[in-house]
Amino acid sequence: MTASTRAEARSARKRQEILTAARAVFTAHGYVGTSMDAVAAAAGASKRTVYQYFADKEELFTGVVLDTVDRGYEYFKPAIRTLAETDDLETALRDHARMTLTGLVDREILQMRRLVIAEAERFPAVGREYFERSWGRTLKLLAETFAKLAERGLLNVPDPERAAYMFTWLVVSIPTNRAAFLGDEAVGSPEELTALADEGVRVFLAAFAPQ
Amino acid sequence: MTASTRAEARSARKRQEILTAARAVFTAHGYVGTSMDAVAAAAGASKRTVYQYFADKEELFTGVVLDTVDRGYEYFKPAIRTLAETDDLETALRDHARMTLTGLVDREILQMRRLVIAEAERFPAVGREYFERSWGRTLKLLAETFAKLAERGLLNVPDPERAAYMFTWLVVSIPTNRAAFLGDEAVGSPEELTALADEGVRVFLAAFAPQ
Repeated sequence: MTASTRAEARSARKRQEILTAARAVFTAHGYVGTSMDAVAAAAGASKRTVYQYFADKEELFTGVVLDTVDRGYEYFKPAIRTLAETDDLETALRDHARMTLTGLVDREILQMRRLVIAEAERFPAVGREYFERSWGRTLKLLAETFAKLAERGLLNVPDPERAAYMFTWLVVSIPTNRAAFLGDEAVGSPEELTALADEGVRVFLAAFAPQ
Repeated sequence: MTASTRAEARSARKRQEILTAARAVFTAHGYVGTSMDAVAAAAGASKRTVYQYFADKEELFTGVVLDTVDRGYEYFKPAIRTLAETDDLETALRDHARMTLTGLVDREILQMRRLVIAEAERFPAVGREYFERSWGRTLKLLAETFAKLAERGLLNVPDPERAAYMFTWLVVSIPTNRAAFLGDEAVGSPEELTALADEGVRVFLAAFAPQ
């Protein structure tokens, strides 16, 4: 490793530390209630260092949101690709539904979702980018997988993107909506979430399995 | 009409005028950005009059939220009751799905939904009451209707409440989620919404019609 790549790695690590600290402060106090001072303190960095990486609070907020969705996408990507190759679709869909629920009812993800919705009017570009890079990318990948499964004769999906959306919402709607209004504790027990994943897959296959 | 019932009717009308004005101010400026002065001006009333009906901004906010959900419930109630008596379930469900979409993608309802989600941490009681009186009551009624349709042999729903939830989200999830992140204009064209209602009904009946 040269001195310059070492410096780059250190810089990337520092940036990530600031993002992690900033995510905690933003989700706890909202956009308005967050100051660059508080983020610097939480990151154990000087305010000057924070400003070296992010020009202002808006840029920092955008950075936090995109970092969160990128990690979400990376969480789902390999599983969705593998799903296209399965020989036992029902089991594979159940596994994927459970994984989707586990990912979406993560406290940090729910808080970030709420924060982005709350700030969508103030920062329409952030709301749009969040949507495209989380829902948009992930469902596009799932739609591609559904299209491949249709080619293999395992599904019947004339509109793969709509089918991908419906699959996801059959599984996530109940806990996501409860969390939005009732708080993160209201998402339901692990047993309830598993039962919901299985029922979502049953409904999906009843409508989209070949006759 | 006695003088006292006339006074009551006048008082109820004035209260409703204040609520209507307050809803417009809250949805335009958020909770923090709304003052009792601005509401009084929008209602064409004195600040003193506003305080006669609502002790503070929090009580006014609660009043606005509950007024909105009560009107939503009254919008759906007769249709859900009638649905239980239908002899052409597919057509009746399609009508209901379209009506649900029309009700939910109303700009005022979307704004109120976003506002309540945004304030759910500050006012957990309001979030909870909104959820119980809108989602809770409406889906309970729809679950009762699904149970009646099951008794009549037209549906197979071992868990009517979960089926009611899934029916609703098959229909509303795509435009609601788009509106939350992309703004009210992103809900889709009337043609797209109708196609979505029909596809939601198809998926629902594939899973919940008796074999």
